[in-house]
Amino acid sequence: MSQVIMQQIGEIRGLDQEAIQRAKLHISNLTVPPGSLGKLETMAIQLAGITGKVKPFFDRREVIIMAGDHGVCEEGVSAFPQEVTPQMVHNFLAGGAAVNVLARGAGAEVVCVDIGVNSEISHPDLLSRKIRYGTANMAQGPAMTYEEAIQSILIGVKVVEDAVKRDVQLFITGEMGIGNTTASSAVSCALTNISVKDAVGRGTGIDDARLLHKISVVEQALKVNAPNPLDPIDVLAKVGGLEIGGLVGVILGSAVHGCPVIIDGFISSAAALLAKAIHPTSADYMIVSHASHEQGHRLLLQELGLRPVLELDLRVGEGTGGVLCLHLVDAACRIINEMATFESAGISGESEDQK
Amino acid sequence: MSQVIMQQIGEIRGLDQEAIQRAKLHISNLTVPPGSLGKLETMAIQLAGITGKVKPFFDRREVIIMAGDHGVCEEGVSAFPQEVTPQMVHNFLAGGAAVNVLARGAGAEVVCVDIGVNSEISHPDLLSRKIRYGTANMAQGPAMTYEEAIQSILIGVKVVEDAVKRDVQLFITGEMGIGNTTASSAVSCALTNISVKDAVGRGTGIDDARLLHKISVVEQALKVNAPNPLDPIDVLAKVGGLEIGGLVGVILGSAVHGCPVIIDGFISSAAALLAKAIHPTSADYMIVSHASHEQGHRLLLQELGLRPVLELDLRVGEGTGGVLCLHLVDAACRIINEMATFESAGISGESEDQK
Repeated sequence: MSQVIMQQIGEIRGLDQEAIQRAKLHISNLTVPPGSLGKLETMAIQLAGITGKVKPFFDRREVIIMAGDHGVCEEGVSAFPQEVTPQMVHNFLAGGAAVNVLARGAGAEVVCVDIGVNSEISHPDLLSRKIRYGTANMAQGPAMTYEEAIQSILIGVKVVEDAVKRDVQLFITGEMGIGNTTASSAVSCALTNISVKDAVGRGTGIDDARLLHKISVVEQALKVNAPNPLDPIDVLAKVGGLEIGGLVGVILGSAVHGCPVIIDGFISSAAALLAKAIHPTSADYMIVSHASHEQGHRLLLQELGLRPVLELDLRVGEGTGGVLCLHLVDAACRIINEMATFESAGISGESEDQK
Repeated sequence: MSQVIMQQIGEIRGLDQEAIQRAKLHISNLTVPPGSLGKLETMAIQLAGITGKVKPFFDRREVIIMAGDHGVCEEGVSAFPQEVTPQMVHNFLAGGAAVNVLARGAGAEVVCVDIGVNSEISHPDLLSRKIRYGTANMAQGPAMTYEEAIQSILIGVKVVEDAVKRDVQLFITGEMGIGNTTASSAVSCALTNISVKDAVGRGTGIDDARLLHKISVVEQALKVNAPNPLDPIDVLAKVGGLEIGGLVGVILGSAVHGCPVIIDGFISSAAALLAKAIHPTSADYMIVSHASHEQGHRLLLQELGLRPVLELDLRVGEGTGGVLCLHLVDAACRIINEMATFESAGISGESEDQK
């Protein structure tokens, strides 16, 4: 099935190995001890591989916030009521949410997509791509149909495609959906060997009793639906979410269009895991931002094989950690574009007896 | 002795507890789940305590790079020759080093101070405050005299004082000095229970054989000098460095003038430990930036009781990690200044049954 969906989405090229070699050579001449730039160096090399340019710069970048609701909320898994999803969508559109504030600081645009909010929302700046009014309760049956899951991915791909036409060169994943840590935990467990107990965290801040309940709800959802771990679309349909599918599309679309995509927190990482399962090469285009405070996120990042750069104990979601990571992507680009070389600065190399 | 030096430097106030309470109240009304902003929230509260303002902003900020040489280099502890110190000073002044590039990206000025480089340097932008031409070889005797150690601290304090007169409101520690990871390791071991083997790392990138040699050199320096762990000035004089002393002054001076000070990597953290030993309240003004790749840094941060926000495997020094942290300080300020409250955005609170 992954092959069929990739035929609809397009091809994902491997990274440009020749550009990677040129970037490595350039970095080795910069006036710092070899390897001392750590993950900034890794990032610069990856960006060269993605863009084919040793000295890339990303002038236009967008946070794509996918918003959707979760039928599983009727099981009482969240600290906040479902009506907060549309309220927060309005907050994003008014520019007052954490992600807006941080995006302004990082020079990124915020785009909000209603892919499945459980109420009517209309706003001139909202991308209305609603598939349905929230998912069904996964504790009782599949969250959505297989076709809806595919549709959610294709919507994400299309949003990226349209943005690329507006010259956007880099994407950041963002999301809003009361109940979506529950769905993301279920997706993580369905795709990996992570246990339900390890995957389920406190989300927006539930207490111990509700945490135990949330664990049992995820266990039930996995038991009732028995998602097929070898078919990521089946996992997304049965225990995922509409906004999670949208983000899978944003990630795959970024890779198809040769754009880096910064992965935000727990929910975004679950989407990244699905994207990687659909097409492993998509992982080459991912930049992981932060290790969030949500339990299970670190395990998910290990599964992705990606190491975060920020340790902020954030558990906001929305794309907040992803936007902050943009400063580090910019830093990596600046290092490559602006730093002196040993030769240009007239600086001695390592001592001969050290070599 | 610490009391005597503080009399010369000035008073360090405790944080403004009333401003801290007001900041906490303000944050609790922002449109995110309680506590979900993690270390951004902690930082915002600390900044309120430091400045007395709930909504601070730091328009003018400076990286102070203290540059000095180390007599211990004659023992062959570094991968690079000592002549790289003045060469890098020229690189800073020309704007081509990693710290310059990253500082431009973060809107910070770079100030370079020759506090003890082992050669003549002159440049219109260089602050020439040379105490001596590098320290003596600490493996054979004290690195400097007790008076020189005090003088190095007072120079750092004065550099901050002058900057504050130019309306600089925030400082970032930076340094350059071939051999200064060796001195910083010795300082760490003298002040704490960290073992020499745990404190000594590869610096600019030495091989296994030289690492073992570096460990034995630090052991010898500690044995020969027997620095008094209860007198931080004695530790600085015997096994420290001129630029390390300068940074102790930058940190204490920032605290005296009510300015936050971002602590860069391993060498800066050794200076921070000395500053804290001289006046514990100075730690309230410190913001720790990153956990560097230099072995021993994490242990030093534990001793300081501070948690880093960046995990970049950097081992450049210069102030690079500190400057990158500035983006997160700005983010914390923006959150406080610009975010909507639950009330202003019309967003529902936590479910009643959750409370």
